[in-house]
Amino acid sequence: MMFEKWVLTILLLQFCCVGCGFCGKVLVWPCEMSHWLNLKIILEELLQRGHEVTILTSSQTYFVDYHKPSAFNFEVISVSGNQEDAEKIINEFLHIAVNIMPTLSLWESAKLFQNYFLDLTEQFEELCRKAVYNESLIVKLRETKYDVMVIDPMVPCGELVAELLGIPFVNTIRLSMGNTMERYCGHLPVLPSYVPVSMGGLTDRMTFMERVKNMILILPYLPLKYYCIQLTNHYRIIASKIQVGPTTLCESLGKAEIWLIRTYWDFEFPRPYLPNFVFVGGLHCKPNVCLQEMEDFVQSSGEDGVVVFSLGSMVKNLTEEKANFIASALAQLPQKVVWRYKGKKPATLGANTRIFDWLPQNDLLGHPKTKAFVTHGGTNGIYEAVYHGIPMVGIPMFIDQPDNIAHMKAKGAAVEVNFNTMTSADLLSALRTVIYQPSYKENAMRLSRIHHDQPIKPLDRAVFWIEFVMRHKGAKHLRPASHDLTWFQYHSLDVIGFLLACVATVIFMVTKCCLFSCQKIGKTGKKKKRE
Amino acid sequence: MMFEKWVLTILLLQFCCVGCGFCGKVLVWPCEMSHWLNLKIILEELLQRGHEVTILTSSQTYFVDYHKPSAFNFEVISVSGNQEDAEKIINEFLHIAVNIMPTLSLWESAKLFQNYFLDLTEQFEELCRKAVYNESLIVKLRETKYDVMVIDPMVPCGELVAELLGIPFVNTIRLSMGNTMERYCGHLPVLPSYVPVSMGGLTDRMTFMERVKNMILILPYLPLKYYCIQLTNHYRIIASKIQVGPTTLCESLGKAEIWLIRTYWDFEFPRPYLPNFVFVGGLHCKPNVCLQEMEDFVQSSGEDGVVVFSLGSMVKNLTEEKANFIASALAQLPQKVVWRYKGKKPATLGANTRIFDWLPQNDLLGHPKTKAFVTHGGTNGIYEAVYHGIPMVGIPMFIDQPDNIAHMKAKGAAVEVNFNTMTSADLLSALRTVIYQPSYKENAMRLSRIHHDQPIKPLDRAVFWIEFVMRHKGAKHLRPASHDLTWFQYHSLDVIGFLLACVATVIFMVTKCCLFSCQKIGKTGKKKKRE
Repeated sequence: MMFEKWVLTILLLQFCCVGCGFCGKVLVWPCEMSHWLNLKIILEELLQRGHEVTILTSSQTYFVDYHKPSAFNFEVISVSGNQEDAEKIINEFLHIAVNIMPTLSLWESAKLFQNYFLDLTEQFEELCRKAVYNESLIVKLRETKYDVMVIDPMVPCGELVAELLGIPFVNTIRLSMGNTMERYCGHLPVLPSYVPVSMGGLTDRMTFMERVKNMILILPYLPLKYYCIQLTNHYRIIASKIQVGPTTLCESLGKAEIWLIRTYWDFEFPRPYLPNFVFVGGLHCKPNVCLQEMEDFVQSSGEDGVVVFSLGSMVKNLTEEKANFIASALAQLPQKVVWRYKGKKPATLGANTRIFDWLPQNDLLGHPKTKAFVTHGGTNGIYEAVYHGIPMVGIPMFIDQPDNIAHMKAKGAAVEVNFNTMTSADLLSALRTVIYQPSYKENAMRLSRIHHDQPIKPLDRAVFWIEFVMRHKGAKHLRPASHDLTWFQYHSLDVIGFLLACVATVIFMVTKCCLFSCQKIGKTGKKKKRE
Repeated sequence: MMFEKWVLTILLLQFCCVGCGFCGKVLVWPCEMSHWLNLKIILEELLQRGHEVTILTSSQTYFVDYHKPSAFNFEVISVSGNQEDAEKIINEFLHIAVNIMPTLSLWESAKLFQNYFLDLTEQFEELCRKAVYNESLIVKLRETKYDVMVIDPMVPCGELVAELLGIPFVNTIRLSMGNTMERYCGHLPVLPSYVPVSMGGLTDRMTFMERVKNMILILPYLPLKYYCIQLTNHYRIIASKIQVGPTTLCESLGKAEIWLIRTYWDFEFPRPYLPNFVFVGGLHCKPNVCLQEMEDFVQSSGEDGVVVFSLGSMVKNLTEEKANFIASALAQLPQKVVWRYKGKKPATLGANTRIFDWLPQNDLLGHPKTKAFVTHGGTNGIYEAVYHGIPMVGIPMFIDQPDNIAHMKAKGAAVEVNFNTMTSADLLSALRTVIYQPSYKENAMRLSRIHHDQPIKPLDRAVFWIEFVMRHKGAKHLRPASHDLTWFQYHSLDVIGFLLACVATVIFMVTKCCLFSCQKIGKTGKKKKRE
């Protein structure tokens, strides 16, 4: 393994001079799941361009393969739980979100989530303490002289490590719940009249009542606010102990040089943004390659083509009932169906449907026979469909999925089906709509054309700005001065107050003068009358 | 000439297949002076890439050389005045701005400008009428089937022509006075707390009183508002006569697919912007080439180097007094000075200073011996200095010049000297500061590094988006939905009103209920007491 790594390093160092003319050291603070899958593409490109990439990961991770030989370096932070514990927490979340939440009232759901977030916060806090209190680790990282940190802020603390090491950092996120993180921490302006709050399921063209809803949602997003307060308390304690400047999560995150956003204008509604926000959605997408063993099955679909069905890597099993009516809906299609599913084979499974543990999703979506994509609406999957111009049926469940599908619906490239209430007929009708109504394919192709027609590819854009931060030790010329204002200065409340006071004073003075003059005239008049 | 043009066309058509894979037809509505010099670079690149470029110009133009052989096509709109009249108007403007305005009160200046703008509006109106009422011209343009129009909105009416022809258009501007045009017509959001009003001379880091000033300036910018109203009146009449949709200049301009802004973040303060705003500042800059006849003089400067002095192509003569004390300041420098000046040779001219009718400004600024640039602060000149990393002494006079210099001052790359009050000592001291205080050179070099380190060159970016509009017949995916809202919807005034009414109703109901309950309890208490 050591020899392989050494050969690889030599090769990369040689490439470096050809690539960017600058070989830097990148430290990464990752998150799990689809976030990691997306970030990994950037990191592999950074490796390709000759940079040294070190991943600072929790020992509990079950996505970052630090045990296997890799061109990445790893610094592992030992925490108390193991990978199974982490998986248990995720499965618990899935169970709550998919099976329990739909049966509860809003209030009960909120309480359940609150408890879940408290657990999560404790985990994050442990990871943070184990990272920043570990002097030998910090000394080692400091001595390595990293040029930049790439941080997924969904797991807090990376920015505290960057602060401790005194290096600039880049955030990588999909716009967050209620736009909270990028609005409060990144100062991204939100205009409630046409910028829908992320996760609110609204579009940029709202009716009056939708704009009222958006305005209410845009006020501090309560569940997330609660979560942030919790985090902030932990933050204060940790930050004060390690003696770094800011004491709130938002202040720390706001120091990011660049925010890499995992979407682009093929997906987003046009909205105001800032020069340090770079939209790099779909950076993981690539042309399809040959399907190999699935090719025969796909080819057998003839003129009717193929439907690709996947609810993502997180949802592995469905209830038997649900699996059955999904299967029966799919059985009624003339298309062939490839279905990613790990549960028990449904009794109603049609001859046209094949179940697979795993799908080469990108290659399937790029196949000329593919007619539609049934998806839970994860950002990565949505972008693969956009890249290949495939219309979608969205069955969103949680986090950003309903919002992602709302975007695709608004752009005319998807039909939504409610996961909790759907019937066989609903799914079948949605599938028929996107397959046989030409507008869906046309819109998906339009988005695809927009996606492919950018002045520079999303992956190159992401890598360019990370390298820029390395070359220039930051990107301060893109950072708005708003970060140095208090919230009331930012909203010009002091100026408005002052101007109103001035106007009030003038009105008061003029009124007083008028009254005084009137009285004077009145008195003179009376005097004259008396005379 | 015809033969030359034919050969050129054949060559370009051959290149086309290599270049962008799409040969389009571009119609251009230009403005004069530095605007044209900048736009011409884009148009030449479009020609290079195989597109057909037709310039729709007034017969009065004195910058667009439609008489000479050219690879551009021209459609000339005959207006009553000739080139000399146009030059007279410009010279009148210069005379007012440079010599008369400084001696007048603010009120007198405003009146003078108002009269000048009224003359200008009449000229614009004539040009507009001669363009859009000319049926044979419109039919000819319509039949040519242009793919896109590139418009300099400083001369209104191009957008009406685009509307008549039914083709998408791209605006090209440097952010306008008070941000009026891009704010009202392009819906660029302006946050008064850290976005200084363009032309206000403020920066993004303002004191409380500066923020008050900015808030006041951000309110409808009066002189420009007046000008717009004048234009709008003419607009209404013309637009209704040719039966095209919008009746105000702003509505028409707001239909632009892309706004090409002639600055970038090396110049601008970081601020919110929209996805259909593309910053392409410095697109005209290029590496310097050998100086030829000036080289010996420049080389003779030795270690001390050279100062480049130019107040732009518009200001040709200065008063004898001003020219004399400028010359005497320059004479005291150990540097050699190349001075662009057309007036009488000043008596105080030093042996170190040479006067030229015209300067190869870009090549001089790129020369390794050049130490400083004395400039009036035109955007093109500023960008040449930024490109080559040369610190500046700014002597701004009018329009965007004071604002341009304010930007460079805030970035630490320039010192400002007041044109009206300056003495020899002021100019000398400013020059010594930028030459001998290393921070000025360092900051100029920092801006230069930022300018050169962009993911794609400004000229390529400008051409990419014009070509994008041609390929996709627009760029609607970048256009904010705010354009379909009324001003009170845009500012959410209806929603805020509704929510306040709801809150007021609730408070009213609760108060009423409380009062009613209190009365009830009170009565019951009294009754009980009586019993």
